[in-house]
Amino acid sequence: MPETPGAGPLRGLRIVELSSYVATPLSGLVLGQLGAEVIRVEQLGGAPDRTRLPRSADGTSLYWSGLNKGKKAVAVDLTRPEGRRLVADLVVGGGAGQTPGGGILVTNTDRHPDLTYDALRERRADVIHVLLTGRRDGGNAVDYTVQAETGFPSVTGPADGARPTNSVLPAWDLAAGLYLATGVLAAERGRRETGRGARVRLALEDVALAAAGALGYLAEAQLAGIDRGPSGNDVYGTYGRDFVSADGVRFMLVVLTVSHWRRLIDATGLADAMHAVEKALDADFDDEAERYRCRSVIGSLLERAFATRPWSELEPLLRSTRALSSPYRTFDQLAADLRPGGLFNELDQPGFGRHLAPGSPLVLDDRQAPAVPAPRVGEHTDEVLCGALGLGPDEVATLRADGLVG
Amino acid sequence: MPETPGAGPLRGLRIVELSSYVATPLSGLVLGQLGAEVIRVEQLGGAPDRTRLPRSADGTSLYWSGLNKGKKAVAVDLTRPEGRRLVADLVVGGGAGQTPGGGILVTNTDRHPDLTYDALRERRADVIHVLLTGRRDGGNAVDYTVQAETGFPSVTGPADGARPTNSVLPAWDLAAGLYLATGVLAAERGRRETGRGARVRLALEDVALAAAGALGYLAEAQLAGIDRGPSGNDVYGTYGRDFVSADGVRFMLVVLTVSHWRRLIDATGLADAMHAVEKALDADFDDEAERYRCRSVIGSLLERAFATRPWSELEPLLRSTRALSSPYRTFDQLAADLRPGGLFNELDQPGFGRHLAPGSPLVLDDRQAPAVPAPRVGEHTDEVLCGALGLGPDEVATLRADGLVG
Repeated sequence: MPETPGAGPLRGLRIVELSSYVATPLSGLVLGQLGAEVIRVEQLGGAPDRTRLPRSADGTSLYWSGLNKGKKAVAVDLTRPEGRRLVADLVVGGGAGQTPGGGILVTNTDRHPDLTYDALRERRADVIHVLLTGRRDGGNAVDYTVQAETGFPSVTGPADGARPTNSVLPAWDLAAGLYLATGVLAAERGRRETGRGARVRLALEDVALAAAGALGYLAEAQLAGIDRGPSGNDVYGTYGRDFVSADGVRFMLVVLTVSHWRRLIDATGLADAMHAVEKALDADFDDEAERYRCRSVIGSLLERAFATRPWSELEPLLRSTRALSSPYRTFDQLAADLRPGGLFNELDQPGFGRHLAPGSPLVLDDRQAPAVPAPRVGEHTDEVLCGALGLGPDEVATLRADGLVG
Repeated sequence: MPETPGAGPLRGLRIVELSSYVATPLSGLVLGQLGAEVIRVEQLGGAPDRTRLPRSADGTSLYWSGLNKGKKAVAVDLTRPEGRRLVADLVVGGGAGQTPGGGILVTNTDRHPDLTYDALRERRADVIHVLLTGRRDGGNAVDYTVQAETGFPSVTGPADGARPTNSVLPAWDLAAGLYLATGVLAAERGRRETGRGARVRLALEDVALAAAGALGYLAEAQLAGIDRGPSGNDVYGTYGRDFVSADGVRFMLVVLTVSHWRRLIDATGLADAMHAVEKALDADFDDEAERYRCRSVIGSLLERAFATRPWSELEPLLRSTRALSSPYRTFDQLAADLRPGGLFNELDQPGFGRHLAPGSPLVLDDRQAPAVPAPRVGEHTDEVLCGALGLGPDEVATLRADGLVG
C-alpha cells in the first residue's frame, strides 16, 4: 500500500459516499486506503453521526474521525433539488466530463429523488449504485436489532445466563461495510469488461443470515434440531476456553491440533491423568471432537494445573506447546501497549490531537496506507467542486452565498 | 448476480485457495459467488477442517459445507514436491498457458516451499499472492485469542460480569475473509492497470486492531483514559437496550432519532413523565447523548410501560414509532421462520440432504448467486487437471495411481 493518497491499486476510482453510521463509511474507508478517491457528501453542518459518542473534550467524535480518515468532505444542502443535482453531477462526472473510474455512488439511503439508481442511470448509463439497507425489503434495521433476530446472542455469554448477550462489536456493520467494498470492486470489474454499470444492493439482515448459514448454524438447526445454548467462553467444536493463572491473569487458550494437545498435557504434567480419564470415559483425546465432548473434565484438570502457576511461568509453558493463547486485555491495557510501526502511526487529528491510529490492515508489497486525518465539515467543498466539477472559485462562492454548499 | 456459476462480474478470474477454518474459505466463497472460478486445493483425504463440528448424522461437516459451496475441490499430496509443483502449475497457469485472470493464490499458510510468493513469482511475474496470518509477524492466532487481546470481551456481557465475554460469532474471521476478497480484487485491478502482480498480506490481529481504531475505542482509551466496562445489552452512545413484554417476549429496541424518541414517549403514554424527568435532571432527551447519559431512568420508565403490554400489542406500537426493534430468536426459531425466496433456496447437500441455505447477500441487478452444494474431496481433480492444466485423462490416472492426486 502506498503512503501517498491516491497511489494504491484503486488509483483512478472516484467514489461518492452518502452515508451514516458504520457500514457504509467503513466501505469508503477501506476503498480509500487502497487508493480510491472517496468523497463523503454531508448535509450542511455535518452528517448526524458527526457528533456520535465517544467524543473528545472539544466535542469531536472519535468514532466519526476513525471511520472517515482520508476522505474528502463536501457539505451540500440535500434538502434542495439544486443541492441534490450537484451531488448527482459529482457522481456522474460533471462539467469536466465522465471519468472512467467515476460514476460510483455508495450509500445507505434511497430517499433522495435525484440520487436513486434510476435517476443517475438516466444521466450516466454505466453508473454503479451501491445501496445498503437494513432489511431486504428496504426497511430499517441496525446491527443490534439484526443481532437479536439472527441467533448469535442466544448462544453468547455465561452458560447459566438467562438473557441473550449482544456483541458490543458491531460485527454485522463491519461485515456489511466489507461486502460493500467487495461489491463495488466486483461491479467495477464487470463494468470494465462489459461497459455496463450495475445496481448493487445489500441488506444488513442478509449479511447476518448468510454468515449464520456459512458457519453451519442454520443447517444444524434445520437438520439436527439442535438448539445450542450459551456456553461462556468455551470454543464450539474444539478444545478452547479461558483460564486464570495463579496471579490472576485471565487468558484464552485454544488447542487446535493433536500436537498442541500432546505438548500441552506433557508440559502441564497431566499426560497420565488425561490418559486415565480417556480410559475411564472410553474417549480418544487425540480427536478434537472428543476433546470437545469431554471438555468439562479436561477443563477441571487444566484449571488446577494453571491455577498453581504464575503467568510468568505459564506464558513460556504455553508458548512451548504452540497451542494458541492470549491474555485478555481491556482497551486501556491495549492502548498502553501500542507502539508506532506496523499498523500504527502517530496521527494528529484536529479536534483531539496526537495519538496512535491504525492504517489499513491490508499490506500490498510491504506497503500499506497509514492513518491520516478525517476531514472537517466541508473541508474539501471548494477543491472538489472546482476539481471534479470544473466550477470556478466564483461559482462556488455564489453557491455558498446562496446557502447551497458549505 | 447470475444464477449460473461463472457468469457474475468476476467471470474469468481463477483463484486457487489453499486454506483452512473460516477466513480464507470465506474469501473464496464470496469471490466464487460473484463469478470467479475458485479451486480449493486439499491434502489427500481432505483438509483437516473437513470434519469440523457441527456434523450431520453421516459425519459431513455442516460448517465446512457452508463455507465451501460452489468451489472446485482438488486433492493433492502436498507433502511431496511433485504435488506442490502441480498446485503451483495451477496457480501460474500450466500447460494451457497463463490465463489473464489466473495467477492468484489465496492462502493461510506459507509453509509450502513451492507455493510462497517468491517461488510463484519466479514462474509468473504478475502473480497475486494473498496470505492471511494470525499475527503480523507471521505467528499463529485464532479468532478467540485475537478477541481476548483486543479488548471487546472486556466490554461485552452482563454489567455485573466479573469475566470477559467472548463473542461466539467469529467476527474477526468474517472481517478478515472479506478483507481478503477486497484485497484480491484491488490487486487484480492494479494488475490490469499496470501489469504488475502483488504480494498481499493480512494479519487477523491487525483486522481487529484496525476495527477497534476505526470505531474510536483506541483513541478513547489513549486520549480520554476511559476504560469502558461491560454494560449488558445497552447500546453505547445512543438509547437502546433489551426489554421484555408482559407475555415474556424479549426484544431489542434502538431509538436512533429524535422523531423515534418523540413518537415512542407519546405511544407509550410516557411523554409527561419523561418531560418531568428531564426537568428534574436538567437534561434534554431530544439529544441522543443525553438520552444515553440518562439511560437508567429512561429504561426504568420504559420497562414498566412494556411489562404491562403483550407482544401482540407492543409490536404495532413500536412499529408506529419507527424506532428499530426486533424480538430475539434462537437459531431454532430462526430456522423455523426461514422460507425459500430472497436469500434462501432449497439445497440438496450430499451428506446431509435438503435444507434451506443462503446464497450471496450481494444482489447485482436483481440477481444473486444461489446456494449450491459444496464439493466432495477430490470431486473436481480430473476436471481441473484436464481443463486448467491440459492433462489427458491417462496422465491424471497415472498421477492417481502414483498416489499424488485423489
